[in-house]
Amino acid sequence: MLKIGIMSGASIVPRFVEGIKESGVAQAVAIATRRLEKAQQLAAELGILKAYGSYEALLSDNEIELIYIPLINHLHFSAAKAAIKAKKHVLLEKPFTLHSEEAQELYALAKEHKVFLMEAQKALFLPAIEDVKKTIETGQIGKVQLVEIRDARPGSEKIPWFWKMEQGGGVLISNASYPLSVTQYLFGTGFDEYNGLCVKHGEGLTDEECMVNLKKKELFISLFLTTKMDFTSTYTIVGEKGTIIIPNYWKTDHYTIQMNNGEVLKKDFPMGSEFVFEIRHVADLLSSGKKQGTVVDPNMTITNVQVVDDLYHKWFGDAWKNVKG
Amino acid sequence: MLKIGIMSGASIVPRFVEGIKESGVAQAVAIATRRLEKAQQLAAELGILKAYGSYEALLSDNEIELIYIPLINHLHFSAAKAAIKAKKHVLLEKPFTLHSEEAQELYALAKEHKVFLMEAQKALFLPAIEDVKKTIETGQIGKVQLVEIRDARPGSEKIPWFWKMEQGGGVLISNASYPLSVTQYLFGTGFDEYNGLCVKHGEGLTDEECMVNLKKKELFISLFLTTKMDFTSTYTIVGEKGTIIIPNYWKTDHYTIQMNNGEVLKKDFPMGSEFVFEIRHVADLLSSGKKQGTVVDPNMTITNVQVVDDLYHKWFGDAWKNVKG
Repeated sequence: MLKIGIMSGASIVPRFVEGIKESGVAQAVAIATRRLEKAQQLAAELGILKAYGSYEALLSDNEIELIYIPLINHLHFSAAKAAIKAKKHVLLEKPFTLHSEEAQELYALAKEHKVFLMEAQKALFLPAIEDVKKTIETGQIGKVQLVEIRDARPGSEKIPWFWKMEQGGGVLISNASYPLSVTQYLFGTGFDEYNGLCVKHGEGLTDEECMVNLKKKELFISLFLTTKMDFTSTYTIVGEKGTIIIPNYWKTDHYTIQMNNGEVLKKDFPMGSEFVFEIRHVADLLSSGKKQGTVVDPNMTITNVQVVDDLYHKWFGDAWKNVKG
Repeated sequence: MLKIGIMSGASIVPRFVEGIKESGVAQAVAIATRRLEKAQQLAAELGILKAYGSYEALLSDNEIELIYIPLINHLHFSAAKAAIKAKKHVLLEKPFTLHSEEAQELYALAKEHKVFLMEAQKALFLPAIEDVKKTIETGQIGKVQLVEIRDARPGSEKIPWFWKMEQGGGVLISNASYPLSVTQYLFGTGFDEYNGLCVKHGEGLTDEECMVNLKKKELFISLFLTTKMDFTSTYTIVGEKGTIIIPNYWKTDHYTIQMNNGEVLKKDFPMGSEFVFEIRHVADLLSSGKKQGTVVDPNMTITNVQVVDDLYHKWFGDAWKNVKG
């Protein structure tokens, strides 16, 4: 059993712990938040044995093999650094870091300390998404030249720091790595070119809506991210012979193929927690001695960070550059 | 009856002449092509009385009030200039000109010579499109924040000059003004920001596929133009309460409203030639003494040209700048 320590009391934690339990290969052995009472309460609720009131205490727990970090965006870099230095393996939630040089520094540090480091991108391990990849590779929908991602996250503004750039808030940084990872998983790592436009929030220090175009050889990717509309987020892959439609692609258990000849195929992949597959994958990697993700590899993650970092630099200039992780 | 002279034997001519006949307000009195035989043949086929083997001859015909120009893209500027100087009213096919300063020069020249000048944008006068505008204005689909245009023009490469930049070939310049005009018609003139990416053709002197993002305040417009895929071109308007879907928007007689509550409304506007409405509109403008379009006004047209001109300059640099209309 992979022994996991959880760093943060974020709203994702109960769902992640559920995934750990269902995985059958891991165990949440401790949780830490800045307030001991909150950690104790969460531990009791989630059946976690140990609760800590500081991240340092969590990192000193010798039982823990891997630290899962779903902290506020701007804390990812320093928290992961501390965990790596404490010789813990690390599963770091998206956005991995704010700036690309921070991402590179983390990977260098993980190598130096011989620990595992990976960005949490659960979508890539979902049976439905794995099947989409197979469908594309068999040529069923023909050559793909257009990918459209329409991602609505209404309610994001309820997150206290969502509009605070200094805490890594904003819609692109918070949500782009989901579709960018799925796209790299399906079509290969890296993008040749990209640019985008945004609507800034309030005083203009974060983005509340944005539209980004990316290109990979002859494949165009159009990405629209909004916190201001409410529709079913959809990942659409337009091929010469048909179109694949994936609703809520980061947690989906189904997708649809609409062939140009009118045929419609709905494909279902019943499942419980959507975190299970990622957790099992990480456990597999660790048991085989891997120090980096083989699917979510450093190049994929650094690309995710780089796209956001570049676009924010264009949109916000030094105000963004000076935000440190 | 508005007496129209047609400058060119392009493939659009028979369809345009059909529209003239159906309009009941205009008459095609003459046609000119560079080869007299071709003009004579077309005149015979289309029931046009006079045929000329030179544009000069056409412009000297005192019976003609308005010249319709659907020549090859790079000839638009010089042909329109000649027609204006001959004191003819001008209906100029898209793309109006290659460069924005050429568009401005034409409008200045038309003013000087007190003749009418307008870009041919038939889509804006279609009953279906006029009804889409009303639907948006009534608030039926709520606030619109996203417009998607997916425009496939397979077979464009069969046009001899389509890949020749010096003749004004390329997918953006040939097709962008359709969706840009419709968008300006529906949401107001001008765009605040835009950028885009393209796939270049062969030696890289035109684009065969491109993706452009535009922004108007909080409205995002995503435009994908391709010659390499074959799907129903669609103009989609995503509002907070529902989505409007317009297939083949530049010649459509129907559209669909999909409300978020599941309701689907199909709206039909039976018609004959899609050119009729534009021709009647131009005849109306002329009979009331107008010298510019009131719907397709100079600002709309100059914006259409400017977007293409700016993007081509970014994509092709001086190679584009040096192409003269």
